[in-house]
Amino acid sequence: MADLPIRFGIIGCAEIARKVSRAIQLAPNATVSAVASRSLDKAVNFAQANGFPPEAKIYGSYESLLDDPDVDAVYLPLPTSLHLKWAVLTAQKKKHLLTEKPVALNVGEFDQILKACDDNGVQIMDGTMWVHNPRTHKMKQFLNDKERFGQLKKVNSCFTFFADSDFLKKDIRVKPDLDALGALGDAGWYCIRSILWAADYELPKIVTAMRDPVLNEAGVLLECGASLLWDNGKVATFHCSFLSNLTMNLTAIGTLGTLHLTDFIIPYQEPEASYTTSTKPNFNELVTGWVQLPREHTVTVDLPQEACMVREFASLVKNIKRNGAHPDKKWPTISRKTQLVLDAVRASIEKGFRPVEIVS
Amino acid sequence: MADLPIRFGIIGCAEIARKVSRAIQLAPNATVSAVASRSLDKAVNFAQANGFPPEAKIYGSYESLLDDPDVDAVYLPLPTSLHLKWAVLTAQKKKHLLTEKPVALNVGEFDQILKACDDNGVQIMDGTMWVHNPRTHKMKQFLNDKERFGQLKKVNSCFTFFADSDFLKKDIRVKPDLDALGALGDAGWYCIRSILWAADYELPKIVTAMRDPVLNEAGVLLECGASLLWDNGKVATFHCSFLSNLTMNLTAIGTLGTLHLTDFIIPYQEPEASYTTSTKPNFNELVTGWVQLPREHTVTVDLPQEACMVREFASLVKNIKRNGAHPDKKWPTISRKTQLVLDAVRASIEKGFRPVEIVS
Repeated sequence: MADLPIRFGIIGCAEIARKVSRAIQLAPNATVSAVASRSLDKAVNFAQANGFPPEAKIYGSYESLLDDPDVDAVYLPLPTSLHLKWAVLTAQKKKHLLTEKPVALNVGEFDQILKACDDNGVQIMDGTMWVHNPRTHKMKQFLNDKERFGQLKKVNSCFTFFADSDFLKKDIRVKPDLDALGALGDAGWYCIRSILWAADYELPKIVTAMRDPVLNEAGVLLECGASLLWDNGKVATFHCSFLSNLTMNLTAIGTLGTLHLTDFIIPYQEPEASYTTSTKPNFNELVTGWVQLPREHTVTVDLPQEACMVREFASLVKNIKRNGAHPDKKWPTISRKTQLVLDAVRASIEKGFRPVEIVS
Repeated sequence: MADLPIRFGIIGCAEIARKVSRAIQLAPNATVSAVASRSLDKAVNFAQANGFPPEAKIYGSYESLLDDPDVDAVYLPLPTSLHLKWAVLTAQKKKHLLTEKPVALNVGEFDQILKACDDNGVQIMDGTMWVHNPRTHKMKQFLNDKERFGQLKKVNSCFTFFADSDFLKKDIRVKPDLDALGALGDAGWYCIRSILWAADYELPKIVTAMRDPVLNEAGVLLECGASLLWDNGKVATFHCSFLSNLTMNLTAIGTLGTLHLTDFIIPYQEPEASYTTSTKPNFNELVTGWVQLPREHTVTVDLPQEACMVREFASLVKNIKRNGAHPDKKWPTISRKTQLVLDAVRASIEKGFRPVEIVS
């Protein structure tokens, strides 16, 4: 029994659920056991198109899936505005919760979800995949290395993509009643997470939005940015947008070293992922060139990053189910900090780009 | 006579003058004809150490060099606070002026220098070398290409280096009476120039300093940043510092393309310089990788960028001397815009990080 995989039910047939369905099937300790859509036809087609095992159950309502005793954990790819209701119900039904990001519309909602998970002893993790890539662990070793990186001074993170007119009219990420956080929730979430990741998840003291957000007619953010300020000499900036060419750069500069990569959220290729580091480079004597060039490092990725995420989540769930362990606190803590900074960016925009203090 | 090289006199034996002495000797239309220092010994040693031709004259005062009829043009590597006096005198002596950056302590001083040059019909150019690299012209072709790059949306520019304790105590760039603009004048100048360059030298409307400048005890900036805002959807950010590992990243994102490089000021190597571009990259169907990777381009550099700068300057001077042409306006206009933005960053810091409107 200890070796049985964690059985996932998927609530909603969003595009992103296709990728995560594959990941659940690739993860060695997980399996897809059910899918639910408000349309039974849609669920049937989804199961077929994504190679679900024949024994997987198909539901025409989310509630039925939540009542299925053969579902251990739920993957929730619904629009953000529906998270509160379905995440809380999932927890109340004693199902562990892997939820798409942003977890909630704001930290108030986040805390309601968290409380439901705590009250019911279930694990919660958000669907930020890149932090589970083996490359991310290697990069973190570099950032933690006082000899090679020194002390973190500056992070710059950027995620933009050029949404076509169809997206800008119809996608859930531009609809105030669905993913009301727009580009900030979708793309900015990753930037904020990357900054917190580089800063060892130390929350900044002050968040100030850039004076340049772009909103659509419904008031949803299509582009924005912010600067983050700690009181120990660290600073960070990020920029996210639906209106610029696909770009995902992350640069972390320390006193002695620099980490840099240009595909931090979705690596260019699945089987391996790269990044560059430099430590104490300098100029040659006449300052006409560098004496030490940044080094490229390539990490082999045996399991796609989203499958690493599922494996990590399933392993925590297994530990709870089989060994009576308490739910892990690390992942919800990281999620909540991301949500806190996201809220602060919104608050700063609403307050005319004034600095907003982060109160955890 | 048309083929005679432009004869340069160098005023001051700063470190940077070694690099530019070599550049003058490498440029096909320039020659070193004199060097002046307040210490004759220093000037003698400088000429010897930098392979000056035997006929080059050595002066123990700046004034004597300015009175030398065999000097066509002056290279001015003195600390910024001395620029006003010596740049104006240079112009009044009808010598053309290649001056180190920042050109002046503020745009008021800049305009006095500019007026002296205008009144005396001499060329002025600042010593920003990277804009003269052949790579820069190639990159600009990409930015101008509506099919490959589209419309500029965002620029991020960063130049940091880790100054040792000796530098932080003694270098002219941390002294309020010498290079009072500190990291902003030294490193930020390049960042601002790169942003203006990418924006076709269109001045931003609003400049807002980041809330995180670091100043030394004498009030000189060791680290700062700012955001720049146009009213047509373009935004930019930069960060400059003496306190972080050597890093010089430039990213320009358009609606359709992205330009990126990590050695924009001093290319890693002299003989060739690289940059990457991407045009309309996208994800594969499951969003587990990219279908089109950024492309690296390498440009052969026959003449070091600083020698390209000297060649360009000498060619303008030649055109004035031999053909009676008017001094070129492009370079001083670009310099002045850089100085205007630099002033605005300072003003924003002084006003508690409030947005500052740029008035040209």
